[in-house]
Amino acid sequence: MNDTPSSQPPDVEMDDLRREGLIDRPDGPGSQPHDGVGRVHLSFTPSGRDVRVPPGVSVFDAASWNGLAIDSTCGGHGTCKKCRVQVVGGTVPVHRLDVRTFTAAQLADGWRLACLAQATTDLKIDVPPLTTRPKAATLGVGRQVILRPAVQKRYVELSEPTLQDQRTDLQRVLDEIDDLELTPDLHVLRRLPAVLRAADFKVTAVIVDEALVDVEPGDTTARRFAVAFDLGTTTVVATLLDTATGTPAAVASMLNKQQPFGADVITRISATMMDPQAAERLRDLAQATLAELTAEVLAEAEVEPGEVYEVALAGNATMTALVLGIDPEPLGVAPFVMSSSTLPALLASDLGLELHPRARAVVFPALGAYVGGDIVAGMLATGMDRDKRTRLFIDVGTNCEIVLSDGDTIVSTAAPAGPAFEGGAIRCGMRAADGAVEVVRIDADGVHLQTIGDVEPQGLCGSGLVDVVSELVRADLLDSSGRFVSDERAAEIAPQVADRLTSIGQERVFVLHRPEADSPPEESVYLSQRDVRELQFAKGAIATGWTLLLEQLGLEQADVQQVLLAGSFGSYLSPAAAVRIGLVPKIPVLRIVSAGNVAGEGAKMSLLSVRERAGALALLEEVTYVELSDRTDFNDRFIDLLAFPG
Amino acid sequence: MNDTPSSQPPDVEMDDLRREGLIDRPDGPGSQPHDGVGRVHLSFTPSGRDVRVPPGVSVFDAASWNGLAIDSTCGGHGTCKKCRVQVVGGTVPVHRLDVRTFTAAQLADGWRLACLAQATTDLKIDVPPLTTRPKAATLGVGRQVILRPAVQKRYVELSEPTLQDQRTDLQRVLDEIDDLELTPDLHVLRRLPAVLRAADFKVTAVIVDEALVDVEPGDTTARRFAVAFDLGTTTVVATLLDTATGTPAAVASMLNKQQPFGADVITRISATMMDPQAAERLRDLAQATLAELTAEVLAEAEVEPGEVYEVALAGNATMTALVLGIDPEPLGVAPFVMSSSTLPALLASDLGLELHPRARAVVFPALGAYVGGDIVAGMLATGMDRDKRTRLFIDVGTNCEIVLSDGDTIVSTAAPAGPAFEGGAIRCGMRAADGAVEVVRIDADGVHLQTIGDVEPQGLCGSGLVDVVSELVRADLLDSSGRFVSDERAAEIAPQVADRLTSIGQERVFVLHRPEADSPPEESVYLSQRDVRELQFAKGAIATGWTLLLEQLGLEQADVQQVLLAGSFGSYLSPAAAVRIGLVPKIPVLRIVSAGNVAGEGAKMSLLSVRERAGALALLEEVTYVELSDRTDFNDRFIDLLAFPG
Repeated sequence: MNDTPSSQPPDVEMDDLRREGLIDRPDGPGSQPHDGVGRVHLSFTPSGRDVRVPPGVSVFDAASWNGLAIDSTCGGHGTCKKCRVQVVGGTVPVHRLDVRTFTAAQLADGWRLACLAQATTDLKIDVPPLTTRPKAATLGVGRQVILRPAVQKRYVELSEPTLQDQRTDLQRVLDEIDDLELTPDLHVLRRLPAVLRAADFKVTAVIVDEALVDVEPGDTTARRFAVAFDLGTTTVVATLLDTATGTPAAVASMLNKQQPFGADVITRISATMMDPQAAERLRDLAQATLAELTAEVLAEAEVEPGEVYEVALAGNATMTALVLGIDPEPLGVAPFVMSSSTLPALLASDLGLELHPRARAVVFPALGAYVGGDIVAGMLATGMDRDKRTRLFIDVGTNCEIVLSDGDTIVSTAAPAGPAFEGGAIRCGMRAADGAVEVVRIDADGVHLQTIGDVEPQGLCGSGLVDVVSELVRADLLDSSGRFVSDERAAEIAPQVADRLTSIGQERVFVLHRPEADSPPEESVYLSQRDVRELQFAKGAIATGWTLLLEQLGLEQADVQQVLLAGSFGSYLSPAAAVRIGLVPKIPVLRIVSAGNVAGEGAKMSLLSVRERAGALALLEEVTYVELSDRTDFNDRFIDLLAFPG
Repeated sequence: MNDTPSSQPPDVEMDDLRREGLIDRPDGPGSQPHDGVGRVHLSFTPSGRDVRVPPGVSVFDAASWNGLAIDSTCGGHGTCKKCRVQVVGGTVPVHRLDVRTFTAAQLADGWRLACLAQATTDLKIDVPPLTTRPKAATLGVGRQVILRPAVQKRYVELSEPTLQDQRTDLQRVLDEIDDLELTPDLHVLRRLPAVLRAADFKVTAVIVDEALVDVEPGDTTARRFAVAFDLGTTTVVATLLDTATGTPAAVASMLNKQQPFGADVITRISATMMDPQAAERLRDLAQATLAELTAEVLAEAEVEPGEVYEVALAGNATMTALVLGIDPEPLGVAPFVMSSSTLPALLASDLGLELHPRARAVVFPALGAYVGGDIVAGMLATGMDRDKRTRLFIDVGTNCEIVLSDGDTIVSTAAPAGPAFEGGAIRCGMRAADGAVEVVRIDADGVHLQTIGDVEPQGLCGSGLVDVVSELVRADLLDSSGRFVSDERAAEIAPQVADRLTSIGQERVFVLHRPEADSPPEESVYLSQRDVRELQFAKGAIATGWTLLLEQLGLEQADVQQVLLAGSFGSYLSPAAAVRIGLVPKIPVLRIVSAGNVAGEGAKMSLLSVRERAGALALLEEVTYVELSDRTDFNDRFIDLLAFPG
């Protein structure tokens, strides 16, 4: 049974379901608790897409983050009942709203609302094709976005000119679209006479905001696309959106081609200060990255470049400056000043993109040199300005951005976490690529590793680093100061792994994986004492950031009702490990949410709704930026927060 | 005595002046009547510029049309008393306002107000350098323009950023210029960090309207330029303006490089209809013409391209479409429709110009396919919408544009005059270049010719054609129907020139110049019977145009208080000849004014005053376009008006 179930009234026999073990908590939130550790695998059909997410992520989010369109208009609250999927492998408990939506037979067949289906085990999910033209889309963290893209198309049939009616070609179009005050691009005036006459005066006007950017022959209203970019320092993601339906048409990601100039923003800014050619080269490389991704998504979805009328880009202040050719130097030296927070009207061609020649570009503004447009986009995608709860948003990375809202006031800051989370400065560190250990579990049987790609361990990525330290703390093999216990103590409390605690030269290490049974420690994948220190510095800086923000609003850790872990690294952190090492406040694991690539989600929202776009600009006024680098209390707090919580 | 006289109270003894013959009509308008025939030569020092103008043009206009700056702020009414020049050769009678301005000694030395000094004989004139920074300029036909260019510069000294003041670089500039709502160009944001820091935060903001187009190191407020273009089908003129002073810095003109595609707009439009590459080629040629002229004026005035922040362009609808790459086809075929009347915000780079990278372009809007931006600019320069008199504006050319105002209502039309005025379709016709006969006089001594460049006659240009026909009508050698009289009749009424009336083949001709005494007629410069017919068709079409406009407003010929002859050809027509052949209404010669290159003057005005620029746009609403091609009475009138007036 693969058809989407109709909306007929449900005839569920709850007892039957309970007997089958499908309802474990009939009045609860429909989720079965998870321990916030490890990863779950989701396989989607018919797309064949395979994804890995931290446990607790909804099936809807897991699909959405990977560019799979599932209909939804309610913001993920189970009320629109559109996000119907069929779980064909693994188990998802029945939510009480599922019971109101599906028949017992359908529920038994695995039909669920994707937005309420939390993935706590590996799943196989069949996604039905979209059947209706949606008026809204669900994006980011539970954001319901009413579709009102800046890009519009209007099909018009015009009367032909006569000596009695010598209205200009343009006027003829404008008179038919009199609800808008359109301004034509020169591009349009150039083509207009030929297009009108070739198309018998039946044409489609392409409008972005109130700019008339093209007039196309015939009726092309169904074809209108936009590309959302998350321009990260490390990874760049492009999503091709069908703005007619609000759904993703294709997603692609790749490493930022600027990588050879350094792993983080500071090294890239330094490059421009030492070499006058570097800024131009970095601009070209960033633009080439965007162009390559664009070509990829267009090819996948069989969309012509000229059918893309708008792009949106969210990136940190340095990436944004570099891709636009703006001198980044003052971002890198105190007092850390931007050229500008907001940007003028831009074209996609200003980003080096060859799409529709007059395609517009929306570039997210930044709050400060270290709370960039990516974070503004993230705030939009997580509704930081709309939710009444006390929420903490953390984008974990080399530069870690932190936003705190008490439902009324929003404060933000940036904490210099350093490269540990990107695998930098870690002996066996590596990027989150095939072979990277991303999940570590220590139990009575020993050490269990999960690697990306399920291949032999090659090194530790950021989430693996957090996991292993967290597990060693839990096993008491690291004391709260971050020091490895003695060999004797290890043999006493954890004999099953004690032999893994050894030394390389003078330094104590914990071996995670030996290529051969008799490989020496230096040829193995291990965690060193210094690696632990690096992680302590990183998480200490972050904890200092949110501690100072909490103080700013007069709050305690326990007051935080939700922690949103964002960014390409943050979203893949195990919530339990994040709590245990003190990277996030000590609150129940279930309140810690992987928010996904919220920068990209914010960029998508801005393309689907001019209202959301305006909301992003409004955030600049609503959010107070707290500069930490001139805080006299920063260092004291930092030293206090290096230790692991008891 | 070459210094500008000071403004001391005059001590003139009028009788002395009268005795010296300097005041012929002490209470009159200061002009001695001229007969509206021929040309006068004016030589200006110290520039060394030599110009030829129809008699009656003021010294101020003659200088201004040729890019020579004479101070003036009152619009040429003799009230600001700034346009002081010294007539050092030839005589200009003393105007009563001269008497109030200069001492008797100064008057005797030839000092005059240039705006009141009508050139009726050849003159040598010394122009003192500008001494003050003007607040207004006199342009066009008596238009006083208060300087308020769109281009502004503001020098600001900014405070440097600190950790306590992390305002962006842009905000720092904007906060200093808080009387304007500035929007920055991306170009500015790119440079801003480096420029501010290199210049110790002392910079000059370059503003066009409310766009911040650049921030330059140090104080550059004195350097700001703009270029005004008159893009004619035949001739293109560029004037480099110093917008700080409102004065021209250099002028250059050349033939439109599109010439090889045909002499008039119809042949050029036809070219684009037959060859898909032609439109692009014509665009490139027009742009190349503008670029070459720009290079010339910049070199002459020693101005850098980057110091030009704005350009204005006035041209007919076809030239404007072609230079902007707009498909011109519908302009050339009924029902004669434009792509658009107004144009969006443009950059100089849209015209192919390499000036300041963000230099703006103001392109004059058109009233209709055949009353283009050049005429709108001309109306601006002649104040058609401001003058309470009944005035007729005629831009004579292949397509002749006619505007009539009764001081309240303004109507306009276009008349297809054909190529006669450009020397086309005339046996010995040629362009107004060296060797072209431009003035013809027939008297008791015979035929007297003046040629451009004072060289041996090579052919007839438009004004020479009008002159010779007018003189032949006056001498009764052409009857009112336009037919040459018989040899017998010629010998009787004009024996001194009767031998010039002869035949080439079957056609009667009047020989103007024989290279050798015994040259056969076909090797001479002559006027043929068919040439007379061509001129009759041309002037008949024009006369039909203004006759129908007069009827539209319920006026007679005698009601016209002023005729303005405009355009590169019209301005050089002899007023007397124009009246005699019936090209203009039958009114006293002194009311027929050479208006000069009013399209170029309008373009200059738009660069010096945003108010005037707005006035040009307002004209689109104020002027009613009268389409002649569907008038049933056109042909009847046309046939009536082929004859020469009695």
